[in-house]
Amino acid sequence: MLGFGLVGQATAPLLLRHFDIGPDRIRIVKPSEDSSGVAAELGIEVTVAQVDEGNHAAILGPLLEKGDFLLNLSVNVSSLALIRLCRERGAFYLDTCNEPWPGRYDDPALPLSRRSNYSLREEVLAFRLDKRNGPTAIITQGANPGLASSLVKQALLNMAADLQLETDVPGSYEGWAELARKLGIKVIHIAERDTQAARRRKTPGEFVNTWSVEGFVDEGLQPAELGWGVHERHWPADAVRHGFGSDAAIYLKRPGLGTRVRSWTPLEGPYHGFLVTHAESISIADHLTLREDGEVIYRPTVHYAYHPCDDAVLSLHEVAGKNWQLQKKHRIIREEIVGGTDELGVLLMGGDKGVYWYGSRLTIGQARKLAPYNNATSLQVVAGILGGMAWALRNPDAGVVEPDDLDHRVVLEVALPYLGDLVGVYGAWTPLKDRSPLFHEQTDPEDPWQFINVRVD
Amino acid sequence: MLGFGLVGQATAPLLLRHFDIGPDRIRIVKPSEDSSGVAAELGIEVTVAQVDEGNHAAILGPLLEKGDFLLNLSVNVSSLALIRLCRERGAFYLDTCNEPWPGRYDDPALPLSRRSNYSLREEVLAFRLDKRNGPTAIITQGANPGLASSLVKQALLNMAADLQLETDVPGSYEGWAELARKLGIKVIHIAERDTQAARRRKTPGEFVNTWSVEGFVDEGLQPAELGWGVHERHWPADAVRHGFGSDAAIYLKRPGLGTRVRSWTPLEGPYHGFLVTHAESISIADHLTLREDGEVIYRPTVHYAYHPCDDAVLSLHEVAGKNWQLQKKHRIIREEIVGGTDELGVLLMGGDKGVYWYGSRLTIGQARKLAPYNNATSLQVVAGILGGMAWALRNPDAGVVEPDDLDHRVVLEVALPYLGDLVGVYGAWTPLKDRSPLFHEQTDPEDPWQFINVRVD
Ligand SMILES: NC(=O)c1ccc[n+]([C@@H]2O[C@H](COP(=O)([O-])OP(=O)(O)OC[C@H]3O[C@@H](n4cnc5c(N)ncnc54)[C@H](O)[C@@H]3O)[C@@H](O)[C@H]2O)c1
Ligand SMILES: NC(=O)c1ccc[n+]([C@@H]2O[C@H](COP(=O)([O-])OP(=O)(O)OC[C@H]3O[C@@H](n4cnc5c(N)ncnc54)[C@H](O)[C@@H]3O)[C@@H](O)[C@H]2O)c1
Repeated sequence: MLGFGLVGQATAPLLLRHFDIGPDRIRIVKPSEDSSGVAAELGIEVTVAQVDEGNHAAILGPLLEKGDFLLNLSVNVSSLALIRLCRERGAFYLDTCNEPWPGRYDDPALPLSRRSNYSLREEVLAFRLDKRNGPTAIITQGANPGLASSLVKQALLNMAADLQLETDVPGSYEGWAELARKLGIKVIHIAERDTQAARRRKTPGEFVNTWSVEGFVDEGLQPAELGWGVHERHWPADAVRHGFGSDAAIYLKRPGLGTRVRSWTPLEGPYHGFLVTHAESISIADHLTLREDGEVIYRPTVHYAYHPCDDAVLSLHEVAGKNWQLQKKHRIIREEIVGGTDELGVLLMGGDKGVYWYGSRLTIGQARKLAPYNNATSLQVVAGILGGMAWALRNPDAGVVEPDDLDHRVVLEVALPYLGDLVGVYGAWTPLKDRSPLFHEQTDPEDPWQFINVRVD
Repeated sequence: MLGFGLVGQATAPLLLRHFDIGPDRIRIVKPSEDSSGVAAELGIEVTVAQVDEGNHAAILGPLLEKGDFLLNLSVNVSSLALIRLCRERGAFYLDTCNEPWPGRYDDPALPLSRRSNYSLREEVLAFRLDKRNGPTAIITQGANPGLASSLVKQALLNMAADLQLETDVPGSYEGWAELARKLGIKVIHIAERDTQAARRRKTPGEFVNTWSVEGFVDEGLQPAELGWGVHERHWPADAVRHGFGSDAAIYLKRPGLGTRVRSWTPLEGPYHGFLVTHAESISIADHLTLREDGEVIYRPTVHYAYHPCDDAVLSLHEVAGKNWQLQKKHRIIREEIVGGTDELGVLLMGGDKGVYWYGSRLTIGQARKLAPYNNATSLQVVAGILGGMAWALRNPDAGVVEPDDLDHRVVLEVALPYLGDLVGVYGAWTPLKDRSPLFHEQTDPEDPWQFINVRVD
């Protein structure tokens, strides 16, 4: 296990329990001693090493035997480099986030396209082109990215069932895309509202979050990215196509942390979220694409609409005011949380019965009952990791895969016990609903599902 | 005293102390019994009455004798109607905010210009045109609007002194405008950062603030307004001139609560504030205007850049997500505040020694030592009220006046004891300083003081 921050600590006890193995079967590699004490409490050995481009093979290679599993739960380590290494060693691989070596997200000299998740994904897709088997390596398999792809599939099946539509479980991407099209899905949000809070408030100069501050700000300062649906008829003034690869997604010439969108969850109701780039925005849109004679005839718009916990909203407001100069103090809250829920799901829009939100409602109380060293956010990630690992062990020769390539039934079955209440709720919400009459806003009243209606300007 | 909310309760004990009068000399009129108990504790009689367009003269007239003082500290009562009444009765008048009868701010059928503070001000200016004396009536004399106008004058004198510039205290508007021009002032922000916080966090569906929630949201949903300087060379795409009156200010076709600007205070450093319309944005810009042959040759850009307390920022984020549908629960924090400062001042930009912030730093602890029933925010307002009342008593026949019409020395002398630390600080900040190189932003690098550089898009 590479990295032992919030997600690493959350995962370790469940690896022991879920796979019924002893702590001697796990090794943690991280840049410094484990000051949290969690590794010691669990009896897991820690190798102190800062993995980088030059040393990663030398450090990790000897630890990886055929059939071992490398879980990359670090930040700032290249996923592709580790995938190569695992392939050489015959080891399984899983990460929750496709990352480059440091210096790519934050190098202003690089074109925006190079700083996108789209380009990172294309690099992995290019790598796997001529290798469709070999030891299974799953990228971006946490909660979102990760579970989100499985939730979309289950949501489509649920919606079909609710409409008494006859469908088998599709066996191909085209089959899923066909189903989504049949249901009229034009837009999919990964719609998340985190209400967890500690008693101690954010102080000035501090960034408080329920998971990696570094990870969040890194991705939030990448360009905002979204899978771009065929129904969209208003090209955003600040949008750009990459001009290579799948063309499933576009980016905006601004950071996700500075880009607000309208979304909805059943418990929160309507809210403004941040359009932070995520791997699933691209992979889900790509996998739900239908072509006819090479022409794209169906694809939904897909993106994240993240309402982080309140103290993170304040942290973002502060860091925006300081031109994204990251606060020096970071606090990831876990034990000190006194209440709240991570309401994380997918919101499918365009269907006849209204929008459909399908996902996990996990309270901090439920999370604590289920596993030590977790908050609600981390446990949802662990659920995706365990689901992915289970799939990999049953499909050991699948090569490099994305969450969308996995059988969602396997993933969700394993994840289910850790998701609190998994619920599907229809809503009458649209991004045009209940707009204030006080000011004229740029909208397309003809089609509520246009991105122009979703974006906050 | 009309209205007995946060500001009313904060003002009452200081009226007793400052003017050395007994509670029998004060009468409170408000729509319901005083549930706070403050009136009873102070021994002040309460008349329960909801004042409206039809009944205000009947209710308030009999209570107003020549030489009495009507303090309007309510919401939703027309300032102009009360000014007329006081004039008839020979009574003094002061309010902290020029308000219309209900239904004007929030009537979408009215043009934006009619919902502006600009139009409210023009109505008062038109009323006073032919009456430049009579019982003194001061409008918009709280902290901001109010003190802010006096702070600007003192700031100009301080800057002149720091540059060893010989100046008498100007005796006319043109004199002040000339001084501001000589100092190179292009932009003035009312730059406020409130860090007060209670232990109990904002809960979902609740708006928490350090002063009137209703007052704040009312003004925040008026169009964003700003005094428009002559140096501005980029006309905002969403800006409109009123086409009548002084022409000192413009409005944007969007609410202030949805309009962010870059500003700076010495303690907070750079921050994003809300460009909420305020009377002083217009009156200061108007009073600092120089004309030559009818042409405007000098005027600074003037506006508010408000960073309310953290729970109010969260309340705004929530209400924005709900299309400005105001939360049902409102909580104005006072006794339950556990820390924080209201850092409220004017920021003068364009001078040779850098930006100059001049204003009040009042901690909740200081406020509590100075007066009961106050937080830092209310005490700054009371300071402005007392300063205005003192000036009125010395100038009983001034007719209707704005804060800019008062002698700032009288106002500040009376206000000073209630302002905590009154400080002037120079800073090297500009709205272009330390911009992130990660994304291209629309700026005018030639002149940092252009509004295009200040606005967050
Ligand atoms: N897909 C999802 O749902 C999801 C959710 C949350 C987090 N994540 C991702 O999971 C990862 C971990 O998140 P977290 O919240 O645990 O972060 P964290 O900041 O709490 O921990 C990161 C860990 O990586 C280690 N690390 C940093 N640089 C390293 C290096 N060069 N070599 C080895 N270890 C290194 C750190 O020491 C730390 O232990 C991040 O990449 C994050 O984006 C994914
Ligand atoms: N200039 C400044 O610096 C400044 C600062 C803060 C507040 N204010 C203004 O001061 C005013 C009061 O603010 P607050 O924080 O005390 O507000 P608040 O909401 O706490 O209190 C408002 C009071 O007005 C009363 N009221 C409402 N409708 C009434 C009616 N029809 N007749 C009589 N009374 C009525 C309410 O009962 C309440 O007592 C607001 O207009 C606000 O905008 C100005």
